[in-house]
Amino acid sequence: MAAGLQPDIELGASLFDALSGATRQGRGIVRDSYGAGEQAGHDIARAAAESLGLEIGIDALGNLSMTLPGRDRAAPRIVMGSHLDSVPQGGNFDGAAGVVAGLSVLSGMRRAGYVPGCDLTAMGIRAEESAWFDIAYLGSGGAFGLLDPACLSIARSDNGKSLESTLIERGFDPQPIRERRPLLDATRIRAYLELHIEQGPTLVAEKLPAAVVTGIRGCKRFRNARCVGRYGHSGAVNRPHRHDAVAATVALLHHLESVWLQHEKAGADLVVTSGELYTDPAMHGPSKIAGETHFVIDIRSVSAATMEAVAAEAMRAAARIGEAYRVDFDLGATSDSPPAVMDERLRAALRGLLRRPYEMASGAGHDAAVFAKMGIPTGMIFVRNDHGSHNPDEAMTLDDFGVGAQALLGLLLNFPLT
Amino acid sequence: MAAGLQPDIELGASLFDALSGATRQGRGIVRDSYGAGEQAGHDIARAAAESLGLEIGIDALGNLSMTLPGRDRAAPRIVMGSHLDSVPQGGNFDGAAGVVAGLSVLSGMRRAGYVPGCDLTAMGIRAEESAWFDIAYLGSGGAFGLLDPACLSIARSDNGKSLESTLIERGFDPQPIRERRPLLDATRIRAYLELHIEQGPTLVAEKLPAAVVTGIRGCKRFRNARCVGRYGHSGAVNRPHRHDAVAATVALLHHLESVWLQHEKAGADLVVTSGELYTDPAMHGPSKIAGETHFVIDIRSVSAATMEAVAAEAMRAAARIGEAYRVDFDLGATSDSPPAVMDERLRAALRGLLRRPYEMASGAGHDAAVFAKMGIPTGMIFVRNDHGSHNPDEAMTLDDFGVGAQALLGLLLNFPLT
Repeated sequence: MAAGLQPDIELGASLFDALSGATRQGRGIVRDSYGAGEQAGHDIARAAAESLGLEIGIDALGNLSMTLPGRDRAAPRIVMGSHLDSVPQGGNFDGAAGVVAGLSVLSGMRRAGYVPGCDLTAMGIRAEESAWFDIAYLGSGGAFGLLDPACLSIARSDNGKSLESTLIERGFDPQPIRERRPLLDATRIRAYLELHIEQGPTLVAEKLPAAVVTGIRGCKRFRNARCVGRYGHSGAVNRPHRHDAVAATVALLHHLESVWLQHEKAGADLVVTSGELYTDPAMHGPSKIAGETHFVIDIRSVSAATMEAVAAEAMRAAARIGEAYRVDFDLGATSDSPPAVMDERLRAALRGLLRRPYEMASGAGHDAAVFAKMGIPTGMIFVRNDHGSHNPDEAMTLDDFGVGAQALLGLLLNFPLT
Repeated sequence: MAAGLQPDIELGASLFDALSGATRQGRGIVRDSYGAGEQAGHDIARAAAESLGLEIGIDALGNLSMTLPGRDRAAPRIVMGSHLDSVPQGGNFDGAAGVVAGLSVLSGMRRAGYVPGCDLTAMGIRAEESAWFDIAYLGSGGAFGLLDPACLSIARSDNGKSLESTLIERGFDPQPIRERRPLLDATRIRAYLELHIEQGPTLVAEKLPAAVVTGIRGCKRFRNARCVGRYGHSGAVNRPHRHDAVAATVALLHHLESVWLQHEKAGADLVVTSGELYTDPAMHGPSKIAGETHFVIDIRSVSAATMEAVAAEAMRAAARIGEAYRVDFDLGATSDSPPAVMDERLRAALRGLLRRPYEMASGAGHDAAVFAKMGIPTGMIFVRNDHGSHNPDEAMTLDDFGVGAQALLGLLLNFPLT
C-alpha cells in the first residue's frame, strides 16, 4: 500500500455520528426509502463528498454518485456502493457502512494526494430495503432499467402513497422506470465493490473482524406448503389408520434436515429453514390427530444447482412420505430469487488482504446482486456486527470497520482486473 | 345359548328410531347433559323398560336403573350400562347403543321367559360427555361419590348455568356430590358390561362387526410444551449459529415416533400424537428462523408403565435435543388420566363368543373406566361404526349391533365370574 495511504476512519466516525443524529427516532434508525430519513442520509453523504471535492451526480431516481476522477477518465470506473435507507427501527450500519466506507477510502486517497488509474465512485443507492416499497433492489434495479413499470403503483407501506407520486414529490422522475430505461451503463463499470455489515452471528462467533463474501445466496421457497390428512381422535385411531398431518410434516422436515447435512458434508453452501409451521387453530386440539398443517420450506444457497437439487428432493420426499403416512402434501409453487456469485479474482485478492482470510456466503440480498446480474465483476466484504441487523442493536465497531475499509482500499491500490 | 333366546333387535331398532326422532336438531343429535335432549333419551328408555315390566330406579343424580329381577335377589347384580347424553351435533349411537343393548338383552330374556341367576340391570348413565359440563364421568363418578364437590359450580358450556342449579332445576339433588356420598355400592355389583360403538376406523378397516376391548387407554399429556430458540434471518445464520425452534421440535417429535415404533414392536399398546403444533403467528415469517414453537405431546396406552416410559424418554430427549440445537424445551407438567384394564376372564369369555375374535384398546374414555376403578370386574364390547363418533355421521348397522348384543347376552348366559 502506498505510504501514508489509509482510509479516513475519522471521517467515517463523524459520518456514522451524523447519520445516527439525523435519523434516530426513539431507539432505532428510520431512513425511510424516498422519505425524509433516507434523504437526510443522502444530504450528509453529499455534503461530505462536496467537502472532499468529489464530483457529484444524482440520477433521475435519486441515486447519488460521488466520484474521485482517475488518470484515465475514459476508462470504465469502479463503483463502491451500498444503500442509505434502513428498515423501520433499524440500525445505523446496514447499508450506510458501505457508502461511508467508499467515502473514507476516497478521503484517504485525497489526503494522500493519490490519483487512481480510473474514476472511483462512492455510490449512495436508493431504496434497497423492501420494507417501504415491496420491491427488491428498487434503486439499483431502477438504475439498470430492470424494474417492471407496474411497480410504480406500489404503495409505500406506511403512508400508502404510490412509488410514482412519491418519486415526483421528492423531485425525481418515474419516466425511466416507465420506459425501462437504464441510467447506468454496465459496460462502463469495471467492478462493483460493496462493504456491508454481516447480518448473522458468524463473525462474532468466529472472532473475526471481516470476511470475504463468496456470493449472495439465492432463495427457492415453498411459501405455501400444506399437508392434508384427516382429523381423528388421538386415542381412538391406531397408527395403521392414521392420516396424521403433523407426523407426516415432521417426517418430511426431518428428512430435509438430513438432505441438508449431506450437502453440507459434500461442501455445498446451503441453509434449509421452516420458519412457519402450524396446525389450524380453528380445528386442532390436544386430543386430536391433526388433519392439516401449513408450513414454509426456505432453501438458500449460492448455487442454483444445489437449490434445485434440494427442492426436487423435497418434492420426491413429499410424495413418498405422503404415501407412507396416507396424507397429501401440496408444496405449491416456489418463489425464486437466483444467487449472485462474487468474482473469483476479486475474492482471491480480498482474501490476500485479510490477516485471517475467511470466506462466507451472504444470506440476505444486497445491491451487489444486481450489479453481478448485469455481468459486472462484483466483490463484497462483510464486517463483523453483533446482534444481527434490521434492529436498533446493530453493533459494528470502528476498528472492524477499519479492517474492512482497509481491505477495500488495498483492493483498489492493486486492482486485480484489467 | 338357551333355545329361542335372542336379543330383541326389533326393540333396539325402534329405540334408536325414537331417540333419533326426539333428539335430532338439524343434521346432528343433541342430547345435552342434564338438559332436554338427555332427558328425552331417559324418558324413551324408561318407557321401554316399563313396558317390559322391569324395575325402575332413578338415583339422586338422575342415573336410570332398569332391572330384570334374578332368582337370587340378594346376590350382587350385573350392570349393563352406558350414557344417554351426546356431544352437541353428535351421532345417534355414542352412548345410547350400550343402553339399548342392555334393554334388548333384557327384552329377549323376558320374551323367552328366562329368569337370570342374579338381578340384571340396564343402566342409563347421566352426563358422560364433558362437552357440556367440563367434568369427566359426571354421572358414573357421582354415583360412586368420586366427584370433587367444587365441580358443582362448573358452568354448562352453552348456557352458563352451574351444575348445582342445573341439577336442582331438573329435580335432582346435588347433596350427594357435596357430601361425596356414593349412591351405588360397588360391592353389590358383580360386573359392569358396556357395549359401545368404536370411535375409530379399526373395525371398518378390519372388516369385523365387533371386538373385545382390552382396556381403556389412559392419557399422559404434555399439554403446553414449548421450545424457545432465537429468531434469525433464514439466509444469514448458518447451522452452527442457529437456535431453530422448529428444527429442534421436529427432531424431538421425530424421535418420539421412533420410540413409539420400538414400543409397538415390543408388543406394547401405545399411541403418541402431537395434534397442536405452531410457530407464533405474531413473530414467525417465511424468511425467519423460528424462535419459538408451542406443541402438545399426547401419550396414550392401556399400560401406565408404558406411558411413564415414553414421557420420561420425552423429557430426556428434550434435554438432549435442546442442547444439540441450542434451544430450551419446556415440556411443562403432564395431565394424567390412568388407564382402566378390562377383566381378563370377561375378555376371554367375550373372545369365545365372537366368530372372529379380535381385541383392541379403547382410545377414548368410557363410564366403564369408573366401574373398573371401583374394582368392579368390567368388560367392554366395541361395535363397528363408520365415520368415527362425536359427529352426525356415526354409522352403526343393526346387524353389527346384533352381533355385539348377541355376545353380551351370551356372556350373561354363561357368566364366567362366580
